[in-house]
Amino acid sequence: MSTRRSRSEATRITTYEKLEQQVRVALAANNLESVRARLAKEHPATIAAVLDRLDHPKRHLIFDPLPVELKAKVVDELSIQATREMLDDLPIAKIARLLDRLPMDEAAEVLAEDVPHRKKELLAAMRPKNAAEVRLLLQYPEHSAGRMMTEKFARLKPDMTAGEAIAYVRKVHSKVETLTDLYVLDPAGRLMGVVSLREVVVAPARRRINNLMNSDLVTVAPETDREEVARLVSHYDYLAIPVVLPGRKMLGVIPVDDVIDVLVAEGTEDILRFGGLEGGGVIDQPYFTIPLMAVIRRRVGWLLLLFVAETFTGTVLRSFEEELASVVALSFFIPLLIGTGGNTGAQTVSTLIRGLALREVRSRDLWRVIRRELLGGLLIGLILGGVAYGRALLWKSSPPLALTVGLAIVAICTWANAIGALVPLIAHRVRIDPAVVSAPLITTLVDATGLAIYLLIAKTVLGI
Amino acid sequence: MSTRRSRSEATRITTYEKLEQQVRVALAANNLESVRARLAKEHPATIAAVLDRLDHPKRHLIFDPLPVELKAKVVDELSIQATREMLDDLPIAKIARLLDRLPMDEAAEVLAEDVPHRKKELLAAMRPKNAAEVRLLLQYPEHSAGRMMTEKFARLKPDMTAGEAIAYVRKVHSKVETLTDLYVLDPAGRLMGVVSLREVVVAPARRRINNLMNSDLVTVAPETDREEVARLVSHYDYLAIPVVLPGRKMLGVIPVDDVIDVLVAEGTEDILRFGGLEGGGVIDQPYFTIPLMAVIRRRVGWLLLLFVAETFTGTVLRSFEEELASVVALSFFIPLLIGTGGNTGAQTVSTLIRGLALREVRSRDLWRVIRRELLGGLLIGLILGGVAYGRALLWKSSPPLALTVGLAIVAICTWANAIGALVPLIAHRVRIDPAVVSAPLITTLVDATGLAIYLLIAKTVLGI
Repeated sequence: MSTRRSRSEATRITTYEKLEQQVRVALAANNLESVRARLAKEHPATIAAVLDRLDHPKRHLIFDPLPVELKAKVVDELSIQATREMLDDLPIAKIARLLDRLPMDEAAEVLAEDVPHRKKELLAAMRPKNAAEVRLLLQYPEHSAGRMMTEKFARLKPDMTAGEAIAYVRKVHSKVETLTDLYVLDPAGRLMGVVSLREVVVAPARRRINNLMNSDLVTVAPETDREEVARLVSHYDYLAIPVVLPGRKMLGVIPVDDVIDVLVAEGTEDILRFGGLEGGGVIDQPYFTIPLMAVIRRRVGWLLLLFVAETFTGTVLRSFEEELASVVALSFFIPLLIGTGGNTGAQTVSTLIRGLALREVRSRDLWRVIRRELLGGLLIGLILGGVAYGRALLWKSSPPLALTVGLAIVAICTWANAIGALVPLIAHRVRIDPAVVSAPLITTLVDATGLAIYLLIAKTVLGI
Repeated sequence: MSTRRSRSEATRITTYEKLEQQVRVALAANNLESVRARLAKEHPATIAAVLDRLDHPKRHLIFDPLPVELKAKVVDELSIQATREMLDDLPIAKIARLLDRLPMDEAAEVLAEDVPHRKKELLAAMRPKNAAEVRLLLQYPEHSAGRMMTEKFARLKPDMTAGEAIAYVRKVHSKVETLTDLYVLDPAGRLMGVVSLREVVVAPARRRINNLMNSDLVTVAPETDREEVARLVSHYDYLAIPVVLPGRKMLGVIPVDDVIDVLVAEGTEDILRFGGLEGGGVIDQPYFTIPLMAVIRRRVGWLLLLFVAETFTGTVLRSFEEELASVVALSFFIPLLIGTGGNTGAQTVSTLIRGLALREVRSRDLWRVIRRELLGGLLIGLILGGVAYGRALLWKSSPPLALTVGLAIVAICTWANAIGALVPLIAHRVRIDPAVVSAPLITTLVDATGLAIYLLIAKTVLGI
């Protein structure tokens, strides 16, 4: 997520900011006519980005006069928070008309996440055919392939010729959402193969589709998690992936642009989780659109849990009260030692989260990983321990105290590296997403245990 | 990066693992013939995944007998480490023949990253036309649009008819890499518009291209960073994005599957950086393929830097030596207080990195963000401070000590929240990627300053 700016990016930012600035000026001057025409020509994603940054009641002044087709496209790109606020003000009939114009997977998303309290009324007010499709999609769990698919794909018969396929495409194209790949179905609706529009166009007109199609297919089930869908599409460089039931009965298609949205959403969600925030829901929304109290509710849970875990450091310290009282200098090194342990553990956990996510590391590699990380931690510990020993002497610590600090660093780094590898691996094995193992969690785990290691070494070396 | 398993995923994992298992068994039995046929039918990405997990010398037994076309496709998907090891064993002529078969942006990548020491010889041994294209791509910086683009796109003239465009597509399709979008150029090679293959196919055969094309274009410059390319493609739901010089002279096209690879790479790179590891280079490679010493070299730099920063905690503690000696119980709360500060700061920094990456927050929002995070930190601090106060009393701390701890939590949470917001915002303003602001960095910054806050409060409240 670099934000280095290139030439073209700078132009683009100017466009956004200029547009937003123009909108603000026009709002202040009560002269919206001047920007409306300009806005209506912009890409729906750009209009949505401007609306996301405006305060709620003002959004209506921009949104309401847009043609209904464009409105639907803008809603498709708007943040959850803004969508909720906008839709809550509209009568059922108007919302239903917008939903009817969305791709049905998006309509299902809006119904489930943005206006769940009005779902029934809205389904009743939508066109029956659309409502039926939405009901079907909503059967599947959140973030599943079934929720993302579209039924509007091109269906070919295996004995069609390429020429007939082109004629069919011309006939249905306005009703089909994705046309880069065409799907070959048998009379029972089972998927037999895929052929790209490109292949059909360049083939001789009389060539039969079953001689053109690729029947060695990668498909997903409707229950497949959206991240798995993204992984398969990126692994195989697909432009769309079919969703089928066992027995290959074809349900729908997930186009690549939906997959890109998943990758963007999940990538940034992972950063949040790694920072110690629950993913999902309102926290995924644009920074300024989340009410502060919602942020705090989300944050405080984890912090309290970590706080309680962290109180064990106090328990450890109290049990070494005498030693600390006799050598006060011992406590000077406490933050340094547990801080270094936490940093080492955070590095390891990020490496493992990535390795597990990309399937480079699997559960059965557990011991291989632990061996590697123990050795790595030991080597890192020896380097940092040497530096710590020297630094402690420079602080005029006694040589035995300096030795204690050096040895403690070696032990804590080795330990932190092992914990940083073990926790995500165990999470993975018990089917918890390793990405919930955040840096703060590992830091906290390492703090109390690292302290105990340090003070035990001190007791032994200093003989207190 | 969830790794929850769905039904279809389970099947896929079995396939991979089974394949790998079969390969291992066949290797052990010295009977590779049995798996070769099976492997040759697999997707190149799957073969690459198996090769990535094998030890180096054994890879040749699988790789060498593959047909050269398939070899090229496998190299296209292989990790850097494996590519390096494989190519280093081959004579120049053989590598050149592989490179000639890759998409030229991939060939440039291999030359620049995997075999830089043999670049000159290889360029001389490649087909002159390909070598020229690669030289052109290598002019552009690493991770730029210019490096990712392909020159092999479909070029239409504005006065062609749809029918003529189809005839042209049939003629050139075998030499063109991406055909989902067709590009309309004027005689000087300037980009006038884009039309999708779909639109050309469904249009009446006599309709002119300049009446079909979309001329309101989003383009990138060859120097544009790959993350900006990904952001634009995901924002506008494109299947490809054209690369142009100022004046719209068209250079090439970046197809969506390359963009997906960028999103996957950057998403996981961000996790590494947030964990306190430098991104890029060898650290991005599959977990088990990175030599341990390379990992340690990469990790120790940051750890040493943080270690030095962390030694300031010792300086702070030594300057409060008397206070700590007179109230030993003060030191029991040190890890708890700085740990909580670090956790709070890590949460905030992850929120800001995300907000900046998605352009929800900009540099000029600095004060708005700081106000918000100060208030948020204060509220979180009041909640946690209340809990800390109670917990300290439970530990039979004196009420003044408990009050000190409670007040310190309020102050440290507010402070950590502000620092967690300020540091990435400042990094962004001075054009450093905020994603390098890792959780360990914030934790370390908060440690020394948080300690000073705590001990100053203690001095005041306890009157020591």
